[in-house]
Amino acid sequence: MAKDFSTRAEDYSKWYNDIVAKADLAEHSAVRGCMVIKPHGFAIWEKMQAALDKMFKDTGHVNAYFPLFVPKSFLEKEEGHAEGFAKECAVVTHYRLKADPEQKGKLIVDQDAELEEELIIRPTSEAVIWNTYKGWIQSYRDLPLLVNQWANVVRWEMRTRLFLRTAEFLWQEGHTAHATAEEAVAETEKMLNVYAEFAEKYMALPVIKGVKTANERFAGALETYCIEALMQDGKALQAGTSHFLGQNFAKAFDVKFTSKEGKLDYVWATSWGVSTRLIGALIMAHSDDNGLVLPPKLAPVQVVIVPIYKGEEELGRISEKALQIKTALEQKGISVKYDDRDTQRPGWKFAEYEMKGIPVRIAIGPKDLANGTVEVARRDTLEKESLKMIDLDTKVHHLLDNIQNNLYQKALTFRDENIHRVDSYDEFKKVLEDKGGFILAHWDGSSATEERIKEETKATIRCIPLDMKKESGTCMVTGKPSLQRVLFAKAY
Amino acid sequence: MAKDFSTRAEDYSKWYNDIVAKADLAEHSAVRGCMVIKPHGFAIWEKMQAALDKMFKDTGHVNAYFPLFVPKSFLEKEEGHAEGFAKECAVVTHYRLKADPEQKGKLIVDQDAELEEELIIRPTSEAVIWNTYKGWIQSYRDLPLLVNQWANVVRWEMRTRLFLRTAEFLWQEGHTAHATAEEAVAETEKMLNVYAEFAEKYMALPVIKGVKTANERFAGALETYCIEALMQDGKALQAGTSHFLGQNFAKAFDVKFTSKEGKLDYVWATSWGVSTRLIGALIMAHSDDNGLVLPPKLAPVQVVIVPIYKGEEELGRISEKALQIKTALEQKGISVKYDDRDTQRPGWKFAEYEMKGIPVRIAIGPKDLANGTVEVARRDTLEKESLKMIDLDTKVHHLLDNIQNNLYQKALTFRDENIHRVDSYDEFKKVLEDKGGFILAHWDGSSATEERIKEETKATIRCIPLDMKKESGTCMVTGKPSLQRVLFAKAY
Repeated sequence: MAKDFSTRAEDYSKWYNDIVAKADLAEHSAVRGCMVIKPHGFAIWEKMQAALDKMFKDTGHVNAYFPLFVPKSFLEKEEGHAEGFAKECAVVTHYRLKADPEQKGKLIVDQDAELEEELIIRPTSEAVIWNTYKGWIQSYRDLPLLVNQWANVVRWEMRTRLFLRTAEFLWQEGHTAHATAEEAVAETEKMLNVYAEFAEKYMALPVIKGVKTANERFAGALETYCIEALMQDGKALQAGTSHFLGQNFAKAFDVKFTSKEGKLDYVWATSWGVSTRLIGALIMAHSDDNGLVLPPKLAPVQVVIVPIYKGEEELGRISEKALQIKTALEQKGISVKYDDRDTQRPGWKFAEYEMKGIPVRIAIGPKDLANGTVEVARRDTLEKESLKMIDLDTKVHHLLDNIQNNLYQKALTFRDENIHRVDSYDEFKKVLEDKGGFILAHWDGSSATEERIKEETKATIRCIPLDMKKESGTCMVTGKPSLQRVLFAKAY
Repeated sequence: MAKDFSTRAEDYSKWYNDIVAKADLAEHSAVRGCMVIKPHGFAIWEKMQAALDKMFKDTGHVNAYFPLFVPKSFLEKEEGHAEGFAKECAVVTHYRLKADPEQKGKLIVDQDAELEEELIIRPTSEAVIWNTYKGWIQSYRDLPLLVNQWANVVRWEMRTRLFLRTAEFLWQEGHTAHATAEEAVAETEKMLNVYAEFAEKYMALPVIKGVKTANERFAGALETYCIEALMQDGKALQAGTSHFLGQNFAKAFDVKFTSKEGKLDYVWATSWGVSTRLIGALIMAHSDDNGLVLPPKLAPVQVVIVPIYKGEEELGRISEKALQIKTALEQKGISVKYDDRDTQRPGWKFAEYEMKGIPVRIAIGPKDLANGTVEVARRDTLEKESLKMIDLDTKVHHLLDNIQNNLYQKALTFRDENIHRVDSYDEFKKVLEDKGGFILAHWDGSSATEERIKEETKATIRCIPLDMKKESGTCMVTGKPSLQRVLFAKAY
């Protein structure tokens, strides 16, 4: 098949950009750093949202909505938080335009409409939300408060890439309040597990759960938990974070509660989020040199049916059968598109759906009608087979499960083959250079060593893994003692 | 029952504010004009979104996401549009903060990070979207383009009211592109009908469909269609608008397509939207002096079950039965909450759910267990009855339908009783003053007369009704000829 886009081997970065463009997922907007999420890309986000939202609600959370604007003075209240975000803030200074007296048809900012205090477009909502929680929390009866928000946020970035790093992005941010540190830590870990389960079950993406080093923590957090995934080019991608915020924001915004015992104390906090970045992860985890590959559970259309016909009469007979199949599949909860457009030929449609990652394609021609068969092609392996129409709904249902599992197993095998254990800094550099991937190595726990490694190799500590056997050793750089291996990689 | 909030008769405006506060729907944020939508309010919005989103998709639309920021030069391109929104624009001028060298811990705007061109927070997205459509549309094959976006928008308002008028609000905005004017008009009308159906079937709110006068048109539209609803205080509320934009935006952003016949022409456009304002309409349409009343189809929780018990053992037996009922109701697709909190007494819970508008309350006590009954209270009429547990799921299902219909019929009767036909300007003023409501009167079609009426009475022409018998007459103000009565009211 003719392709006018790059392969992974030729140019991984260009391959990614080409898929985003050709699979109609997103494009750069005229506004620097901002993206337009096109209907196919947005439909994937809707599938992600639906699955995550259900998981949040099943774990007792409710949704709410907080303002887009953060007064500058709110951002200042938590010092680490302010430092972490100040450099990326879009600032609203005025609230009115007026006609330009010197140029007809042009508008200028009305200098009489300057805000008394500048407003920041939320880069994250801790400040606004904790200022609000002050009014919501008085007693232990008001706790825990388990709130999530789906929203857009803005972090001004100089170098942007569609989905992976954009000035505006869409996300969800959970913000919870608890009576004890233990409860807050338990919530932080619970939501990390929700993210890991979502990545594995829906995105077919195995992840390593861990905690960040102090250097890589969220600005304002005591501990940042994360899930880390491996992309096909051997680089890591942080796919979700869950923060234990301690009492930092409660203290900054003076949020206290009366305990059952009548004692007044500051509230304990968590926040956790995933964003449209996950679409970037999804693309890079599974797609191939023919285009996008989607796990069935996140595919907006799971099955496309394409008629192969000459003339209206034949199309009529095929359509009748195709629509029966469509109905039967839909009754199994499968989303199906029947593409009988006469403006494009079957070959064009095949290429289109391959590029867009539709998991299963069914083609029906006159011979199929005669034989009671259809041609079924699966996107993950590109295999085709002729199947009897009898029980086709059940067969396709199994096939979709099979594809979902196959993508996960493939990603898991790739990930596991690309975790390297090294014991010397020289070996570390060599593996990083030659193979990439995740590297498990001993580190002395100091920020200085961590920064030196980053400067010299561009690799960062992705996390201190949670579910890994503790094994003491000596730091590969300084030779100082280490209690467990940590996970290094170059990262997106 | 003790109440610490106003009745409608005492102070309608305060009654509204009290309900919003006491039913935990929303509150003012620290940012001027912006609201926090609290979990109960947001859950209503989610129900609205789900119903509307399905209706949009069933009529062939897809969702996408466009940037929050509109470059100032984009807004200028369509002249009427620019004029209409310039005065309400929040303007981003800088993209970075820095530490204040004079005050430790404070941040100031970094003057080195001034944007070359100011960015407006979208007050609506025509400009950004039509600039994008330029890249998406070349041929008639690309049309129609039927896209919707769920988003936040900002229109800087000096006088705000929760849900009804806020600086930031949530909405959906559909933006479609068509090959012909006829198709675009048909789309505009189709979406108006979708809104009317949503208002009537889900919100239980009868609406009058019509077109706006030139004065009241959307900035940049050739024709604005609307649905108008009547609130309990006799004021009208515009509940949704659908705009035929002609080729205005296609011309402003140079969006042309090649027709089937090979002719190059500008594309025809529509846009249509409803917002969180609908929650304000919902509150004012049905609620009473005991609190919020919700139509079952938009109630986040449709049935609440409250146990009446003394001691753990009794609670255990009641809970067993309550959970059976809950499961049976859920199997009928009914959303149910079982409130067995031991921190609040039943009376407190009854008042709480009454205030929050839960349509049906089921109470179960020890006598009920013995008799095989439950006490069922409906929120709309406040009637209570004892029902046998047998077939309770079916009975409650019917009851919910009954409440939905009752609310609609009640609102319809109220609306119809408050449409007044008047033939003189004196009568007009008198009816407006004494009764309020909708007034059908003859108008000469001139903006001057319309403005005079508005200045003298504060009533505006809500719309020129679509589904009403044409009846010629003479303008009540000027005596000039009129072809049909138009709908006046004071409005939110």
